[in-house]
Amino acid sequence: MYESVKQKLFRLKSNRLFEFAVISVIIVSALEIGAKTYDLPGITDRIMLTLDWFITLFFVFEISIRFIADHDKKNFFKNGWNVFDTLVVVVSLIPVNDSELALLARLVRIFRVLRMISIIPELRTLITSLLKALPQMGYVVLLMFIIFYIYAAVGSYLFAEINPFLWDNIATSMLTLFRVMTFEDWTDIQYETMEVYPWSWFYYMTFIFLTAFAFLNMVIGIVVNVMDKESRREAELLKQQLEEEQEPQPTIADLQREIKELKHILQKQIAKG
Amino acid sequence: MYESVKQKLFRLKSNRLFEFAVISVIIVSALEIGAKTYDLPGITDRIMLTLDWFITLFFVFEISIRFIADHDKKNFFKNGWNVFDTLVVVVSLIPVNDSELALLARLVRIFRVLRMISIIPELRTLITSLLKALPQMGYVVLLMFIIFYIYAAVGSYLFAEINPFLWDNIATSMLTLFRVMTFEDWTDIQYETMEVYPWSWFYYMTFIFLTAFAFLNMVIGIVVNVMDKESRREAELLKQQLEEEQEPQPTIADLQREIKELKHILQKQIAKG
Amino acid sequence: MYESVKQKLFRLKSNRLFEFAVISVIIVSALEIGAKTYDLPGITDRIMLTLDWFITLFFVFEISIRFIADHDKKNFFKNGWNVFDTLVVVVSLIPVNDSELALLARLVRIFRVLRMISIIPELRTLITSLLKALPQMGYVVLLMFIIFYIYAAVGSYLFAEINPFLWDNIATSMLTLFRVMTFEDWTDIQYETMEVYPWSWFYYMTFIFLTAFAFLNMVIGIVVNVMDKESRREAELLKQQLEEEQEPQPTIADLQREIKELKHILQKQIAKG
Amino acid sequence: MYESVKQKLFRLKSNRLFEFAVISVIIVSALEIGAKTYDLPGITDRIMLTLDWFITLFFVFEISIRFIADHDKKNFFKNGWNVFDTLVVVVSLIPVNDSELALLARLVRIFRVLRMISIIPELRTLITSLLKALPQMGYVVLLMFIIFYIYAAVGSYLFAEINPFLWDNIATSMLTLFRVMTFEDWTDIQYETMEVYPWSWFYYMTFIFLTAFAFLNMVIGIVVNVMDKESRREAELLKQQLEEEQEPQPTIADLQREIKELKHILQKQIAKG
Repeated sequence: MYESVKQKLFRLKSNRLFEFAVISVIIVSALEIGAKTYDLPGITDRIMLTLDWFITLFFVFEISIRFIADHDKKNFFKNGWNVFDTLVVVVSLIPVNDSELALLARLVRIFRVLRMISIIPELRTLITSLLKALPQMGYVVLLMFIIFYIYAAVGSYLFAEINPFLWDNIATSMLTLFRVMTFEDWTDIQYETMEVYPWSWFYYMTFIFLTAFAFLNMVIGIVVNVMDKESRREAELLKQQLEEEQEPQPTIADLQREIKELKHILQKQIAKG
Repeated sequence: MYESVKQKLFRLKSNRLFEFAVISVIIVSALEIGAKTYDLPGITDRIMLTLDWFITLFFVFEISIRFIADHDKKNFFKNGWNVFDTLVVVVSLIPVNDSELALLARLVRIFRVLRMISIIPELRTLITSLLKALPQMGYVVLLMFIIFYIYAAVGSYLFAEINPFLWDNIATSMLTLFRVMTFEDWTDIQYETMEVYPWSWFYYMTFIFLTAFAFLNMVIGIVVNVMDKESRREAELLKQQLEEEQEPQPTIADLQREIKELKHILQKQIAKG
Repeated sequence: MYESVKQKLFRLKSNRLFEFAVISVIIVSALEIGAKTYDLPGITDRIMLTLDWFITLFFVFEISIRFIADHDKKNFFKNGWNVFDTLVVVVSLIPVNDSELALLARLVRIFRVLRMISIIPELRTLITSLLKALPQMGYVVLLMFIIFYIYAAVGSYLFAEINPFLWDNIATSMLTLFRVMTFEDWTDIQYETMEVYPWSWFYYMTFIFLTAFAFLNMVIGIVVNVMDKESRREAELLKQQLEEEQEPQPTIADLQREIKELKHILQKQIAKG
Repeated sequence: MYESVKQKLFRLKSNRLFEFAVISVIIVSALEIGAKTYDLPGITDRIMLTLDWFITLFFVFEISIRFIADHDKKNFFKNGWNVFDTLVVVVSLIPVNDSELALLARLVRIFRVLRMISIIPELRTLITSLLKALPQMGYVVLLMFIIFYIYAAVGSYLFAEINPFLWDNIATSMLTLFRVMTFEDWTDIQYETMEVYPWSWFYYMTFIFLTAFAFLNMVIGIVVNVMDKESRREAELLKQQLEEEQEPQPTIADLQREIKELKHILQKQIAKG
């Protein structure tokens, strides 16, 4: 009996209408999250609460179906997307009465919107390819962190007394340097320190150039890498195509064999004659 | 008789002088729109009105000629550019007396400048190729929207009481986040929320990195895509060129046939001898 | 005698020491221009004046030599760089007593620094290649101008009364829109108009997306174009290299001829035998 | 005996545990530098001092081992990274009592963090490749400097009296222009000068376009250059691969020789017969 239920659920899971319903509920859930940010009359508050329970139940229902219908239950939680979906649902199930935690509960519900990514295959592949691009940036990010760290330490040592709000310690300084990197009112910071250290423009200048240069190289590195892969894949495809097109053609070596045979016959004939 | 008029109009339409006249009128129309934004003495006001009517009439005249001269009237309005041109002209024909609508009428007239795009073939192909690039950005735009939506919801829940002007509801928050993405005085917003939530820099940091990273990937995706198409088109061209250059050359298979024939003759001869 | 002078001057012109002297004088001239922006004691003023005359005379002398030593005097002024050099020198020769024009005279002298570009071959080729990149951007620039013009007209019609300083007429509006495009305090402008037209964020949003999108496409277009040329040049080079490497190799057609000849001999022999 | 010590040290140097210890000490040293930027209770001050001496001694010890274990002592200091490491260590050894120099001593200690780059091979190659990219930008940087210099001279001549803080002399003006290039509150500067010179927007506009255009070309230049190298290297690899795969194949020339031989035999036979 279990098998027949499983098969029915599998058919349900693969049904386009079911898929459509899941996406609809996710969108409704997203709209509800958005609606909650507006001041709403008292009555909508109760509707929201009901809607919230319906969405939570629907998600529990959907995840259960997916789990039961899965042929390979052992590896169900080896798939990151399944783990993510389950986590989002489980956390929404925890009852929250404490007002302190109420905010946290609302925040967690927001992550339901992320289910949009796990449900649309195109977005999943996009995220996967974005994550694949991360490691190749690893060392440039480390290099930028070292640049940030050194400049933040220097800035903290020199400018802490000029403006403690910006340069008090190494963490604050790194935040300030990130601000400088985004060019956000960076000249205000510069003019302030230049009153005490007239040469401090050199500090900002070199920092901007170093980070911009490292960033530029990272971008170029990724572009080159992606295009490299693309062109290699294409070359591979072309090669396959060529190999498929060609029937086995006689080679020059085949010809040589034939000619040698011919010569042999002739020589035998001469020897005989 | 209709046919002869049609042919005359077709010749007129294809005339370089006529084309030049149309472009001139569009430029004059654009200049008039610009001139209206200045405070002008009373007399120019009447000149403007006359000019306006002349331009409208000319556009009606031009569109009519294009329609009458068209061989394939059924598909005239299947061409998006023709629909656009006709719409712009028709809307300018609606008489406006109401002062409320006067502003709208002036705004609609501005779209006449867009006729510049529909009249210059190079700009049309440019727009067409820009529109073609849109779909391939579709999913990245959806992903960025999801990122914006989630961060806006979080921002609205947490920061609404700190600064209602920036974080009151999800729409305002998304506008504020777009501002953060353009780095426009984003540190002011950050410092404000950091007074209540000292760790909120993490919110801005991750948002900036996520959107910048997604944007970067979109740009790289487009570049790779465009270059891919380019290189494939070029490879196609090269292949064609090569095929055209070569006369039919004897292949190794041809040679093999010849040698086999030779062997056959020789063997027959031996058999005979 | 003229010919011998010409040859001597030609040798002088091609002399590395002379070239070095010219570059040195240009650098001195640039330093002088920079030094003049500082408040200097009275005595340096006279030194400057002397230096200025020396530089002017040296440039007259150098241009004369270049002209006399040129073998092809008719085309001397067909070279844009020669025209530029001569113009800079001639304009500095005009005596200025009027204090009004004194500023202009000082400004003209600044262009002497540009001679650095005309004297260093690498910079000349760089400028030439930059100028070559311009036409391919032509239509995108026209498109961006049309976008700017339309948005400026709309902005001027709608927002002129809200802030005349920013939106008074179409010229001011275009300047304001350029400011919006550089993200410079653009939200201040937006918040101001949103008080009257709450939906005006749509105006800024679409403007930013359209210009960013057009700009992005321009950049991608240039990149693709440059790489295309590069790869075509390289393919050309590779082809040449290949052709040079190979000695004339016997083709399959040559072989076929040989084999046919062989068959002919054999058949004749058989006919004889 | 010296040789055996050297060999032991060489084995120590190559030991993974030793490498790990060096990286750990560098990280501890970096954390110490960061910790010093916070206000710490008196007791930690003494711990810091001890830690500082331990780190300095460890670095002296590590550099000595690397030097003694090196087989080719003559070229030890020809390696830039070794020189850098030694310098950082030697400078930290100088005893500082003067309070004036104390700040300098602290700043020098920050450079210990840079040893992270010299110790991690991936970061070393990254830096080396970044430095290799520098020369190809040389002339564009020179061109940008000339643009900056000319605009700074013009700005200094025209605007010095409007706002001496921004335009007093050529150095200040260049700093202001760098600010304009980063779009940092550039319209404030522009509006200020437009009150005196209403056409000065032209000055800022052309400056922004020229620098953006030159910058764009530099980036494109680097991208093209990097991809060019990449594709050339790949073509080289492909060629090698192809050459390795193929066994020596008979060429058409080999065949021709065989056929000619065959003809020769036949003709000799005919002559005989």
